[in-house]
Amino acid sequence: MICTVAALLLSPLGWLGAQADPLPSWNDGAAKKAIVDFVQATTTQGRPTFVPAAERVAAFDQDGTLWVEQPMYTQVLYGLDRVPVLVKARPELASVEPFKTVLTGNREAIAKLSMKDLEKILMATLTGMSIDQFQAEAKHWIDTTKNSRWSRRYTELTYQPMLEVLKYLRANGYKTFIVTGGGQDFVRVYAEEVYGIPPEQIVGTAGGVKYEYDKNGKPVLTKEPTLLLNDNDAGKPEGIHLVIGRRPYTAFGNSTGDRQMLEYTKAGSGIRLAMLVLHDDAKREYAYGPARGLPDSKVGTFTQALYEEAKKNGWVVISMKDDWKRIFAFEK
Amino acid sequence: MICTVAALLLSPLGWLGAQADPLPSWNDGAAKKAIVDFVQATTTQGRPTFVPAAERVAAFDQDGTLWVEQPMYTQVLYGLDRVPVLVKARPELASVEPFKTVLTGNREAIAKLSMKDLEKILMATLTGMSIDQFQAEAKHWIDTTKNSRWSRRYTELTYQPMLEVLKYLRANGYKTFIVTGGGQDFVRVYAEEVYGIPPEQIVGTAGGVKYEYDKNGKPVLTKEPTLLLNDNDAGKPEGIHLVIGRRPYTAFGNSTGDRQMLEYTKAGSGIRLAMLVLHDDAKREYAYGPARGLPDSKVGTFTQALYEEAKKNGWVVISMKDDWKRIFAFEK
Repeated sequence: MICTVAALLLSPLGWLGAQADPLPSWNDGAAKKAIVDFVQATTTQGRPTFVPAAERVAAFDQDGTLWVEQPMYTQVLYGLDRVPVLVKARPELASVEPFKTVLTGNREAIAKLSMKDLEKILMATLTGMSIDQFQAEAKHWIDTTKNSRWSRRYTELTYQPMLEVLKYLRANGYKTFIVTGGGQDFVRVYAEEVYGIPPEQIVGTAGGVKYEYDKNGKPVLTKEPTLLLNDNDAGKPEGIHLVIGRRPYTAFGNSTGDRQMLEYTKAGSGIRLAMLVLHDDAKREYAYGPARGLPDSKVGTFTQALYEEAKKNGWVVISMKDDWKRIFAFEK
Repeated sequence: MICTVAALLLSPLGWLGAQADPLPSWNDGAAKKAIVDFVQATTTQGRPTFVPAAERVAAFDQDGTLWVEQPMYTQVLYGLDRVPVLVKARPELASVEPFKTVLTGNREAIAKLSMKDLEKILMATLTGMSIDQFQAEAKHWIDTTKNSRWSRRYTELTYQPMLEVLKYLRANGYKTFIVTGGGQDFVRVYAEEVYGIPPEQIVGTAGGVKYEYDKNGKPVLTKEPTLLLNDNDAGKPEGIHLVIGRRPYTAFGNSTGDRQMLEYTKAGSGIRLAMLVLHDDAKREYAYGPARGLPDSKVGTFTQALYEEAKKNGWVVISMKDDWKRIFAFEK
């Protein structure tokens, strides 16, 4: 036994392995240090800040935190792509807004649709089918559709530094959850493969499902056009309670929609880590919110008011430009 | 290496350990065999029925399946116990039904209250407080209140054979979930300690919670008198989809409220195991449902119709009298 341990310590590879940087795509700085310090403080036996393994919950927003959210949320793009299919089944929608605008294909006009219009489109295009059918179709779209700026599948537009944080936390006994304003059913389609996060660890905006029987008497769950959980803003801590039932020890977000989740996380006892991704890298990704001085009236982004709250409450801001060595796995 | 394995095989303790019965409180019979066969079929590498570890989901009803549900659901008893506290805060309820009847303490009259009345009592007594306050009070009640028949805490009235099934499944890579008509928040208070099941693996009837700030500006989740999920009947597969997002490979229930969950489980591909606990042991526990020929109109029990469906669909019935060597851990 002593021999084996000694061999491991003396072996250059063993030593290197033990010392390997768990966050190689991060530059050294306050953000990286905050993550490493937090993990050591909460997982080192004997420290007053130690957290038992069963309570190690980490929550991650998705859009803008784990993958690109510009120029539109990926799920919205999927909903827009499904409009022609929907109109084929229900031709009367062709002359009704917002479907009429979507059918013109005029990108500028589509970009101007309100959040309410977009929600109407998602509700119409992503319900009324069985869960099995939804999963198959969404998976096909995710596997085959490419983003226009990078000509890559959307699942390749995940942030490599954040994938490293997910792995690092899991390697230290944390259960990682996605807590997203996006559709729970949509994110579940690819999250296990892309993030290593199983369906039961996805909290998202959730519509109702109805248990029915098909014509062969086989049970079927059908997606209903009703809203069970709007997992944005206050809906995030409410959704965390519904699905997880424990307060996270760390949470990552990037917009006003994550504010309450970060407040709720930070208000817990012991050491808690709240982090905000700041999109300030127009060259490698995008720059918006405080990085460009956009007005706070712009919904769903990292506003100046959120920036002030972060500073006041000790949330750590991640600068994509300064803290991330590379953004995507495909960058060399 | 060879030496070590040989030593293990030759050691009487090592050998015994490998051969130890994972279900010692079960008599040999069709029910026990069905469980062991299912686990071997789904966890033995190379078999066509093998299930990858990530997909191993097992769902358990609680009342009547994991612990005693007679003469009333434990959570209903808790709600009844809280009525005097509620009336102290809102004296006008003293003269309003069903609270008036509860305050008389007349057990016979209380036993005759309808399910609707009981739901009204639970909604009134278990909401309007913060999650933290609810958890502290429910924990105190669970830790200190004793069942009258056995003079034991309710958490001691869990079925030892089922605790063994939970452990056996987990030892074989299954994630065990409770899927209960009982309150999700209530069951979470003791499930980790009693069943080894963490809060994020409890699916139950769930009321809304509201994210607010207390007078010090600290975030608080308050229990609202609204219903998000009625986790009974069709609500069980719907709740499984909402919280788990995967179809279970095995499910255990004991009443008509579990019918849809068992149907949904059994309708999946590959090998699926659906089991029903039959309460047919009046001496050691209770006998009701088909065991006593009670009419099917009696809600929430194992009806004759359910018994027929079980036989038709290959669900395995567990006879408490014949299949269980002992029922409670405190029995010698």
